[in-house]
Amino acid sequence: MRKMEGGVTAPRGFMAGGTACGIKRDTLDLGLLLSEREATSAGVFTTNMVKAAPVMVTSQQISKGRARAVVANSGNANACTGDRGMAHAWDMVRETARVFNLSDEDVLVCSTGVIGEQLPMSAVKGGIESLAALVSPDGGRDFARAIMTTDTMVKEVAFEVETSKGTFHVGGAAKGAGMIQPHMATMLAFITTDLEVNRSVLQTLLEEAVEKSFNRISVDGETSTNDTVLALANGASGVKGEGEGLGLFQEVLERICRILALMMVRDGEGATKLVKIEVKGALSDEEAQKTARKVANSLLVKTALYGEDPNWGRMMAAAGSAGSCMEPSRMNIWIGDVQVVQGGVGVEGAEKKAHGVMRQREYTITLDLGLGSGTNWIWTCDLTYDYIRINAEYKT
Amino acid sequence: MRKMEGGVTAPRGFMAGGTACGIKRDTLDLGLLLSEREATSAGVFTTNMVKAAPVMVTSQQISKGRARAVVANSGNANACTGDRGMAHAWDMVRETARVFNLSDEDVLVCSTGVIGEQLPMSAVKGGIESLAALVSPDGGRDFARAIMTTDTMVKEVAFEVETSKGTFHVGGAAKGAGMIQPHMATMLAFITTDLEVNRSVLQTLLEEAVEKSFNRISVDGETSTNDTVLALANGASGVKGEGEGLGLFQEVLERICRILALMMVRDGEGATKLVKIEVKGALSDEEAQKTARKVANSLLVKTALYGEDPNWGRMMAAAGSAGSCMEPSRMNIWIGDVQVVQGGVGVEGAEKKAHGVMRQREYTITLDLGLGSGTNWIWTCDLTYDYIRINAEYKT
Repeated sequence: MRKMEGGVTAPRGFMAGGTACGIKRDTLDLGLLLSEREATSAGVFTTNMVKAAPVMVTSQQISKGRARAVVANSGNANACTGDRGMAHAWDMVRETARVFNLSDEDVLVCSTGVIGEQLPMSAVKGGIESLAALVSPDGGRDFARAIMTTDTMVKEVAFEVETSKGTFHVGGAAKGAGMIQPHMATMLAFITTDLEVNRSVLQTLLEEAVEKSFNRISVDGETSTNDTVLALANGASGVKGEGEGLGLFQEVLERICRILALMMVRDGEGATKLVKIEVKGALSDEEAQKTARKVANSLLVKTALYGEDPNWGRMMAAAGSAGSCMEPSRMNIWIGDVQVVQGGVGVEGAEKKAHGVMRQREYTITLDLGLGSGTNWIWTCDLTYDYIRINAEYKT
Repeated sequence: MRKMEGGVTAPRGFMAGGTACGIKRDTLDLGLLLSEREATSAGVFTTNMVKAAPVMVTSQQISKGRARAVVANSGNANACTGDRGMAHAWDMVRETARVFNLSDEDVLVCSTGVIGEQLPMSAVKGGIESLAALVSPDGGRDFARAIMTTDTMVKEVAFEVETSKGTFHVGGAAKGAGMIQPHMATMLAFITTDLEVNRSVLQTLLEEAVEKSFNRISVDGETSTNDTVLALANGASGVKGEGEGLGLFQEVLERICRILALMMVRDGEGATKLVKIEVKGALSDEEAQKTARKVANSLLVKTALYGEDPNWGRMMAAAGSAGSCMEPSRMNIWIGDVQVVQGGVGVEGAEKKAHGVMRQREYTITLDLGLGSGTNWIWTCDLTYDYIRINAEYKT
């Protein structure tokens, strides 16, 4: 298994492209991903009760388990847009099917951006028309750029995997930035492979990979209306997803999801740090997750990460209010490999060394509750002035 | 019932004072509140599983239902300080009892400030000595100043209440600022009255008042290790807390708690807005509270409040992830009296008017879920650059 250039069009038989259709000003805002043959498909969607129109459309479409194309726009979430928004999402499906000569059932749709405004459909339709001339096997990067909102960097990754039955590829692209919290919050991710994968196997493996990656990151604890992770497997490599090949696919799928998820946290709005909050010794993995999430989302912890301040008291306080069982006198905390708390009290002289760890861009904080064998983790980032700037000025 | 000057020493028979004992640099950091006669006492404490030493000591002391004095320091929370911290909290009790010639059982203790450092006990003991010469019936304001941490304004309030049986008084002082979330998070509040109130009645009324005030505010969603609300009733007015007098006491107690709670939100770290998030039409009051709290704590909503941006989509998204039942198409939202969402979609032309409302310092946002008759509310504030500055630089 080796990393290669590119993203969603690295696997054979996929084309993609992006265009500036006019939802945003002079920026790529509409992308298309196309498989030259029928692909099996799988999807995971936001848990928010307010689901954007494209989420409702695509979760219905995906139930058929096959697809040829994904049309995705940025700049407008098509969320909270009522019946008109639903009609617009279906229009995007139908228009894409018409222009690319596909069945309506084979088109998936995603949107991301501002909530509550109607899509400018004539611009979108014009964009879909012009994508016909733009999609190509080299278009993965334009597709990845077209789905960006406040992202500051393109997020794509691809791997080539050799098996005794032949070589296959897996590629991915994503958009993330703000509003990211476990349970699928404003993020879009697209995974492609030229391996042949059974649709129910693809759905299961995708759900497992999402659980260990996108559901383990937090930028600001928000859950969005539009989150979607889609996977398409078109079999163009001629390699069957079974035995050794399927095992390797699972491995590379999880790796790609983790890489894309970490790119999202690193590019969290205003973020300057990527910190893994690891919880051990909880009564159960679920309790460990609750504690990790509470610490990861604590504003006081996140501002301390920004200030490179080994303020373990804030971590103790966050863990104490997580709702999981904890006994302060059993708690041990490490920042990197520097133990800062032993038995619930501070380790003398540890602060300076811990500060040294916190000056790094990426490190791990470990909380051992000392109660059981439950473990879990969340990747988080710091909370900075730029988060405020980006979000106080985002819309108006 | 009329508002009057002063705070905890406005009721008869209370004295207080503050001193700069040296925990902080050249600032009042130790306060004492003293009742000249035995008072009934009541207390409500943090729900955090990590409880500071003074919280453990005072919740044990309060079970006796009577007290003469409260000693409180700022600059050091005496939390996560282990057995030594417990010994220090008891030392503060005993030293206060000795200097003021009280029984140990009659002294309560509170601390607020940095977690995880040991109190400088010789400074604290020296401070308690010097308070002997400083406490006076005019010392309420010094006491209120001595408990401040990142607070930018002194928080005190008092009322005089006339009844057919005579006049009594109720006073209060508090510290708040950051880290405030319903369920008692870093805040201290002290209520005094010269009404005679039975201890179990006092406890019940205090719990009810806290539920409607301090448990209905949120600055940053954090829950602290030190939160404490104490009430002392010394009967010095000669008025008995029964019938008309008790009814008026309950009313003024709730009013004082609400006034102090709102002072805390107004003075939330970096806050420039005080916003009441009101939820109606939920399936139950509990569900309404979950939704109100989620919206109130949403970073995207709080930055929109700061940016005066009527971004109702963020409110919809927060409500959708609150875990309460909601049906987007039934949702109506008002900013002040401007309806911005009707049936889950935006009201055209409302944004400009809503922006006008949001330019005010204080206003209400109402979310009607349209499902049932459950209502609740949370007072919150905006999230600003100054919150980051204060908390990224707080300790080191």
